[in-house]
Amino acid sequence: MDLEGHFDDFERRDWEEDAEGTVRFAMVGLGWWTREYAVPATNESDICETTVVVSSSTEKAEDFAAEVDTVEAALTYDEFQDGEAAEHYDAVYVATPNALHLPYVEAAAESGKDVLLEKPMEASSERAEQIVEAVDAADDVTLMVAYRMHTDPAVRRMRELVESGFIGEPAHVHGHMGQPLLEMIPDPDQWRLDPDLAGPGASVTDLGIYPINTTRFVLDSAPQSVQAATYSGAEGFEDVPDERAAFTITYEGNVLASMTASQNVHKNGFLRITGTEGELLLEPAFLGPSDLTVSRGDVEADLTLPEWGEKQQMNEEFEYFANHLLTDRQPPGDAEHGLVDMRAIEAVFESAERGERIDL
Amino acid sequence: MDLEGHFDDFERRDWEEDAEGTVRFAMVGLGWWTREYAVPATNESDICETTVVVSSSTEKAEDFAAEVDTVEAALTYDEFQDGEAAEHYDAVYVATPNALHLPYVEAAAESGKDVLLEKPMEASSERAEQIVEAVDAADDVTLMVAYRMHTDPAVRRMRELVESGFIGEPAHVHGHMGQPLLEMIPDPDQWRLDPDLAGPGASVTDLGIYPINTTRFVLDSAPQSVQAATYSGAEGFEDVPDERAAFTITYEGNVLASMTASQNVHKNGFLRITGTEGELLLEPAFLGPSDLTVSRGDVEADLTLPEWGEKQQMNEEFEYFANHLLTDRQPPGDAEHGLVDMRAIEAVFESAERGERIDL
Repeated sequence: MDLEGHFDDFERRDWEEDAEGTVRFAMVGLGWWTREYAVPATNESDICETTVVVSSSTEKAEDFAAEVDTVEAALTYDEFQDGEAAEHYDAVYVATPNALHLPYVEAAAESGKDVLLEKPMEASSERAEQIVEAVDAADDVTLMVAYRMHTDPAVRRMRELVESGFIGEPAHVHGHMGQPLLEMIPDPDQWRLDPDLAGPGASVTDLGIYPINTTRFVLDSAPQSVQAATYSGAEGFEDVPDERAAFTITYEGNVLASMTASQNVHKNGFLRITGTEGELLLEPAFLGPSDLTVSRGDVEADLTLPEWGEKQQMNEEFEYFANHLLTDRQPPGDAEHGLVDMRAIEAVFESAERGERIDL
Repeated sequence: MDLEGHFDDFERRDWEEDAEGTVRFAMVGLGWWTREYAVPATNESDICETTVVVSSSTEKAEDFAAEVDTVEAALTYDEFQDGEAAEHYDAVYVATPNALHLPYVEAAAESGKDVLLEKPMEASSERAEQIVEAVDAADDVTLMVAYRMHTDPAVRRMRELVESGFIGEPAHVHGHMGQPLLEMIPDPDQWRLDPDLAGPGASVTDLGIYPINTTRFVLDSAPQSVQAATYSGAEGFEDVPDERAAFTITYEGNVLASMTASQNVHKNGFLRITGTEGELLLEPAFLGPSDLTVSRGDVEADLTLPEWGEKQQMNEEFEYFANHLLTDRQPPGDAEHGLVDMRAIEAVFESAERGERIDL
């Protein structure tokens, strides 16, 4: 593709195929992300619709259902697991705390429902493996892990530029995602800081997964070994090892990726890929609109799509998933794909504790 | 200092004291850096002057001497070591290949001459220790390692901003320096790729030392442990382990610094310090003019001094060194300071080989 194409057709949906029909979603877990991004994303789309909502109590589910015209059933988690109202939805969006993903994916798979599963897959790779097994055992169930960067146009253009050789051979990656969690959600008892619900850490699991997975996607390359250091010292982070974490992941092709994540820093995210001939910098990234700067030799260009924030990312992700379902295609980010990230995340904690490189 | 001060007085020399006199330099090693940056830096200054030049042969030294009005003697390395023309200079600038630093520093120290020593100090920490000993044994000799970032105004302003708490508590660093060495100097036999002359590596030793040392300077904090990965694959890098290197250094205060260096990538350098409240980004950095972006909360400002390249950095460094000599002060970057970097660099290679964290 020539440079002009990158500008004129930046948002093109290279993944889209002609499709007919609508995918009706059951929304499992009604946190702010589901209410503010996921449900609006389905209902602004011509091919998605939220028809069922699932929460911890009938009251919570019904309260939210009253705000959304398209909802036909409001269920508790137990009712959902019992298969109630199954005729009202085709697919399930799972956005509960990490450690609760498995039972709802199992319930969905048993009913033959497709699953869009928030990342990280679960609280441990062991439980993530059980998700893989549940999907494998089910009859024609498609599961996609909700890596919204896979459908961000700036990230897809990055991937094309790497594949086309624009930056030469990729050599280094610098990636980071950080935010001041306790300023954003001033509750020390929140699930993201509770290892029983979130998994082994607070920052790597929730934030570090973005640079880890986006690098995999952009380079089309798997992580091979991990070295890491973590630290926790601030109030509120007593139960997790990674108020901040730094980890070097070697990807296939001997790409050395230097990544960091923290739930207790200034809000920012970036992903920089340096090659023998040029460099791609996505910054800001992960936390809202992505801005792509492309360098090669002495020339630098800025490919910016300023309005493409979390809302557009979620709209695109739901349509991407639905379009694949309606055309009988498995999107690349399947359960096996998500499991690789779970293992990389666990290797970060193991390496930090042992002070040794962990091969994956 | 208020924000206005950062703009109006960006280049201020907070280190300068009233001084009288001139420091006369012997330039040891007449490579392109000495000829194009060091000698012009002295001769544009009111307090520095190049009066002696030293090279491998009389002819080479005399050829260059003929181009510089102020030169009073042109010596071979042997003549310099024998103390010839010692009455014509007060201080020595050593810019030979790394593994040749020690004998010339020893010769200078024995003659009581002060030394501005290019980084890295030597090819090994063992030889760097011998430099420390030579200076200690000498009578009133001041040695400064030539970390030109210490006098770069953008770096000094970064340091003040960190010290003032502008970014809160520093948490993460991302640092990188990379260049396509064999495109810049198309000679596979050059000393930077020869471990006998350069030391254990090509990229960490020559380039990685910039983010390592500049982070020390900006945070006023020492490296405590190192984890690293290295890779060499390209033609020309057969004799060195680090065509590319990624290393995590934990600095005092549990600051996790993710750093990379490569002699075979797109040319760029940056240093980013992320704190609990804000972020400082120096980019480009190390390879020419430095551009400082300062963020805190939702506000971002760009403090740019576009004309401040290698030339200005070297002018400033020579005047900084000379001003300290003329006012009888030891600048912070002494031999003990340089030795810390040598040990960190060796730990990078040891960690990469053993796959283990190395405590310093």
